Amino acid sequence: MHNLKLSVEYDGTAYHGWQVQPGLPTIQGFLQETAKRISGEEVRITGAGRTDAGVHALGQVANFWTAKDLACESWQRAFNGLLPPDIVVRRAETVPDGFDARRSAKQKTYRYSILNAPHPSALDRHWLLHIPDRLDVASMADTVASLIGEHDFSAFRAADGNSPNSVRRVYEASFLTQGHRLEFVITGDGFLKHMIRIVVGTLLDVGRGRLTPATFRKILESKDRQHAGKTARPHGLCLMEVSY
Amino acid sequence: MHNLKLSVEYDGTAYHGWQVQPGLPTIQGFLQETAKRISGEEVRITGAGRTDAGVHALGQVANFWTAKDLACESWQRAFNGLLPPDIVVRRAETVPDGFDARRSAKQKTYRYSILNAPHPSALDRHWLLHIPDRLDVASMADTVASLIGEHDFSAFRAADGNSPNSVRRVYEASFLTQGHRLEFVITGDGFLKHMIRIVVGTLLDVGRGRLTPATFRKILESKDRQHAGKTARPHGLCLMEVSY
Repeated sequence: MHNLKLSVEYDGTAYHGWQVQPGLPTIQGFLQETAKRISGEEVRITGAGRTDAGVHALGQVANFWTAKDLACESWQRAFNGLLPPDIVVRRAETVPDGFDARRSAKQKTYRYSILNAPHPSALDRHWLLHIPDRLDVASMADTVASLIGEHDFSAFRAADGNSPNSVRRVYEASFLTQGHRLEFVITGDGFLKHMIRIVVGTLLDVGRGRLTPATFRKILESKDRQHAGKTARPHGLCLMEVSY
Repeated sequence: MHNLKLSVEYDGTAYHGWQVQPGLPTIQGFLQETAKRISGEEVRITGAGRTDAGVHALGQVANFWTAKDLACESWQRAFNGLLPPDIVVRRAETVPDGFDARRSAKQKTYRYSILNAPHPSALDRHWLLHIPDRLDVASMADTVASLIGEHDFSAFRAADGNSPNSVRRVYEASFLTQGHRLEFVITGDGFLKHMIRIVVGTLLDVGRGRLTPATFRKILESKDRQHAGKTARPHGLCLMEVSY
């Protein structure tokens, strides 16, 4: 048996997220069906991050076990020949038995992209959240530092999240401005359900002057979801990298 | 009557090009129908460049005449509220009577974007031409200088192009490499039908070593379409800017 690791890029627009759901198009579903077409085996593919519906990935990582003797390049070519064009296998490689895309992951980096301009974008509409309001980007940039470190992120988790432990460690968090485009980039050991999207929704309240950087910090410390902002729409979010 | 100038961004993927064609979705068609819904008038919208099916624009310019007394900002908001999300009016402004988006245009800038990597891109698949072959980008960059100046571009025009004059002036032509992404940017007083796409197809033959920069120049001088390369696919092309 071979343990195969895939690096996967996808445009999440047309999918109901990573995880298999009966009767709905999902990334995991398409990858598993394609692996079955290639190998003839029932394959279970594990992903590093279970991205929500509409969320994209440049660097999702997945792995699966197969008995099929096929060179990694042939796997990659077969996947890309059979997958729809909005899912691309960027790399396929054999990894040691102990490797599990989810459990072995040390760090994940996500990016959330915002277009802060009066009019939306036609070309980038699927990966930029359009915010026409004037935003105080300096305050937003000041705010993100308070996310760094180990915290109980209960204030920024979905009500129906089922992780038993809400403590996560954030290694880096940055907020960059390039013209009308704002990018929030966060690296951590893991993220709670909807965590980054709720953080972004709350950051936008800081940008609109409804909250100060200090209040944002208090919301984090309150561990109370009621105090945080709305869950930002999924399409601005992209899983950039998973480190092992 | 008011002469209204629009700056328009669009994702050409879903459209049969700029120009109205009965029964087919086109950019001009959607803009005209929307202007009619806003004003109640039959409106004829003139575009600076008649982009092909699948070609995009960040800075297409158009104009039309209307009797409707409506502030420019209201026109813009109404357009963006009614147009599909892949067409966006970035600016609307009143211009002097003599202004005609096509005839008054002095220069147009187009960009053609290529992904030169073993695997395609999922996220950028609609605006990058994927070329997995190894390309000699230095030779491609050397070649583009021969386009600059006034030339008879008959070698690089579609057989069915109907412009009576095949002489055009190219002001700037550059070929830039950024990682796996290659960008050909060209500015001229106008372009023949399929001209940029045939130039790119021929440039790719230089990249693949089938032609030298010197042969490219001879093909241009031959004025014979038979000697040039294939017409590159439309989706890498984007109308960036029109100057007046």
